[in-house]
Amino acid sequence: MSDVTTTDLYEVTMALSYRREGMEAPATFSLFARALPPERGFLVSAGLEAALDYLADFHVTPSDAADFAAVLGRPPGDLEPLAGLRFRGEVRAVPEGRVVLAGEPLLEVTAPLPQAQLVESYLLNLVNHQTTIASKSVRSVMAARGRPVVDFSLRRTHGLEAGMQAARVGALVGFAGTSNVAAATRWGLPAVGTMAHSYVEAFPDEEAAFRAFARTHPGPLTFLVDTYDTPLGVVAAARVLKEIRRGPGCAVRLDSGHLGALAARARALLDEAGLPDVAVVASGGLDEYAIDELVRSGAPVDVFAVGTRVGTSADAPYLDSAYKLVEYGGAPVMKLSTSKITSPGRKQVFRSGAGAGAGAGVEPGAGTGTEAGTGAGTGGGGGTGAGAGAASPTLSDLIALWDEPPPPGAEGLLRTVMRDGRRTDPPDGLADARARLEADLAALPEPALRIRAPEPPAAATSPRLIALTGEVRRRIEAGIARAADAARRERS
Amino acid sequence: MSDVTTTDLYEVTMALSYRREGMEAPATFSLFARALPPERGFLVSAGLEAALDYLADFHVTPSDAADFAAVLGRPPGDLEPLAGLRFRGEVRAVPEGRVVLAGEPLLEVTAPLPQAQLVESYLLNLVNHQTTIASKSVRSVMAARGRPVVDFSLRRTHGLEAGMQAARVGALVGFAGTSNVAAATRWGLPAVGTMAHSYVEAFPDEEAAFRAFARTHPGPLTFLVDTYDTPLGVVAAARVLKEIRRGPGCAVRLDSGHLGALAARARALLDEAGLPDVAVVASGGLDEYAIDELVRSGAPVDVFAVGTRVGTSADAPYLDSAYKLVEYGGAPVMKLSTSKITSPGRKQVFRSGAGAGAGAGVEPGAGTGTEAGTGAGTGGGGGTGAGAGAASPTLSDLIALWDEPPPPGAEGLLRTVMRDGRRTDPPDGLADARARLEADLAALPEPALRIRAPEPPAAATSPRLIALTGEVRRRIEAGIARAADAARRERS
Repeated sequence: MSDVTTTDLYEVTMALSYRREGMEAPATFSLFARALPPERGFLVSAGLEAALDYLADFHVTPSDAADFAAVLGRPPGDLEPLAGLRFRGEVRAVPEGRVVLAGEPLLEVTAPLPQAQLVESYLLNLVNHQTTIASKSVRSVMAARGRPVVDFSLRRTHGLEAGMQAARVGALVGFAGTSNVAAATRWGLPAVGTMAHSYVEAFPDEEAAFRAFARTHPGPLTFLVDTYDTPLGVVAAARVLKEIRRGPGCAVRLDSGHLGALAARARALLDEAGLPDVAVVASGGLDEYAIDELVRSGAPVDVFAVGTRVGTSADAPYLDSAYKLVEYGGAPVMKLSTSKITSPGRKQVFRSGAGAGAGAGVEPGAGTGTEAGTGAGTGGGGGTGAGAGAASPTLSDLIALWDEPPPPGAEGLLRTVMRDGRRTDPPDGLADARARLEADLAALPEPALRIRAPEPPAAATSPRLIALTGEVRRRIEAGIARAADAARRERS
Repeated sequence: MSDVTTTDLYEVTMALSYRREGMEAPATFSLFARALPPERGFLVSAGLEAALDYLADFHVTPSDAADFAAVLGRPPGDLEPLAGLRFRGEVRAVPEGRVVLAGEPLLEVTAPLPQAQLVESYLLNLVNHQTTIASKSVRSVMAARGRPVVDFSLRRTHGLEAGMQAARVGALVGFAGTSNVAAATRWGLPAVGTMAHSYVEAFPDEEAAFRAFARTHPGPLTFLVDTYDTPLGVVAAARVLKEIRRGPGCAVRLDSGHLGALAARARALLDEAGLPDVAVVASGGLDEYAIDELVRSGAPVDVFAVGTRVGTSADAPYLDSAYKLVEYGGAPVMKLSTSKITSPGRKQVFRSGAGAGAGAGVEPGAGTGTEAGTGAGTGGGGGTGAGAGAASPTLSDLIALWDEPPPPGAEGLLRTVMRDGRRTDPPDGLADARARLEADLAALPEPALRIRAPEPPAAATSPRLIALTGEVRRRIEAGIARAADAARRERS
């Protein structure tokens, strides 16, 4: 399996035909989500860094060409037109961590048609998956209202790679850590986790288990207390913690049962034992809905560990995303068939009322591609506040054509991030993405931030884009009318 | 990222403690799904082959140990007890492709406790993901009632690895092909797909696009006909297909709109054009529910392409799976806390009324581990029939302890597939798995096979397992009572 052959066969058949027909003019494809899932008030852009790595390395090797020939049942020589092909295009994209709305391009590729086509499936996969999980994960951070959220999803994500990405986008939206060692290593994230029920079961009783754990591990301890009877587990944990005086950062973890009631009982027992600094960690089927209920009910949970439902975005495991041809050889194009209409032309999204850079960072036309001054990282702290700031301006987006002048004070979300197949800037850090997200969240209206029944803001469309869409539609409809006439004549 | 560090941190902290405490006795962990998702009548076991590859290679390198030390903030020497550790255990498992019910172990690991613990997260991930997607995918094959189903999911799976696995388990349950070139190459599957809407849009009109495509591609052609106006697209496709006389295997593809009505219109137009052999392929948001409706309504769709909803198992993107310690040092153990009770001991599942091997293939105790005679591959054909065979016996399962004698004529589902960290048999082929699935499906009762509101059969539990569970429960409850007494005394 190579990254190049990890593609849909039709990308290959089309690219081959384009090369044979000499159709190498620049094509622009736009990657966007047509609509948001029902329980999302906004999306969080993610996947761009991996997408750029893929594009920078894209190179059809002889082995790739041989694989293409084999699955097509063609002689290897037939694939000659694709051999050696590299991606040499331009990419304009929304940086990771920005809030994105329905219809707004996350990424646009402009490249000779065969190149822009061949990379479709892989780009869609990366951006769709990571944006889906980031847009789910941020909701847990919002629901937790400043209490730390950590990622426990590895065992239930769709494969190991998905587990790595869940940990990464978790950090991007403000998670405080991950249980995934490989992800913690790769992205420098805090790794979290101590013991499972099996650990407790392997000892004669809970106290013996906790003491043994403490013998091996010198730092702060988290004891899992719900293997048999939760309050008794808390009592055993408290006894050991009092005795060994391990200092700050210790906790008990609840993983089953009525978490709110058990957290209250655990808190009371710990306080009674003179351990007010020992925290209560809750896990087990948590997502933003459960966290929201626990927080609203005043449950004394200090840390939330989310896993399955968040790492799979269980209530909306995909986006209605598309990678659509919007321009070819300088002419705008679009699809017109039932219910899946796209709008033509290269686009920009102008955002007002958000981000640090009011007026700054607007990239005019084929601009400089430098990152706008949205500030450096915020550090790993509590992050990504709950709810819109009191008096901050409200985010308002305008989808326009790429070369339109920005409205006063507006910022262009799409930046030129790749030219001639090379990144224009070094890879972006997670802290930068998190800072961008925090600024955008602070500008979202309250209904978009609700955990239940959020109301996504709608982006406006510029008059020029509306006019162009109408123009292309009329051109296509005229073509359809001519074809219909021809079909009628043919049949009569 | 190495396979060894792709694990939850707590596996490492526990394993380290076990080594320090000298707790190296054999432990048995059981991997099973506690319950089925609402819209599943059964599960299809998948992921075992990848799990065995992982276990056979499992080896903690110095670099892995260094990564563990780094995320724990410990000096490298502290991880010495895990360095060089390999998996040397035994695995008993249900072969891929078998029908599995709630509570039935998919896989059991018996190994020195640290080894059996360290592999938990990775094994759960593989088996949970692949069984989830296989159990979803088979439903499309059932709904299609013999018409071919193909996989188009790559662009919407949770990462590229998930796309590879979706194609593989699709083939396992009877899909006729995949759009994923890398998956087709790796597993020798038919690759399918021809053109996207962008292809049509890049030409002056549909007819020009179809003719250009035919110039490059000599084999059977599938023309996408819904870019502008579907019936006119069919007329253009018919005109080109008639003219170029490409032979059998050609088709038109519909990807949007009211697929049933458009398929009927396309069929009529093709027949009218004298092209009764040109097939109609439907795609676009299909899953088993949509396929079932199309088939029941008599829509003349010849091939169904499924993608997003199937490749993400959108209505149930995970299983309530667990990897539970059931035996340690020869003694059965279990977890008792609220609502998540496990049952103790090494297990076997005895199946009656299914498979080719009535009486054959039962593996007594620590048996031979050879694959039962469920027959060789069935080829890639229509496969995996719809509905239970008329007079075949009905599948009936008994969850028992591993060393119980099988009921007369029953077959043990779990086989010893690995001993001392080595496979007992060469890797299994997809055709074998498909044959096993077909045999099991033929023995499932009709309510389990329903597309909507299926009723899963329940496995029975053997009297010995019930007795052992009661015994261990009483032992634990006595311990809880003693702990409660002690806690009371402590407080008064």
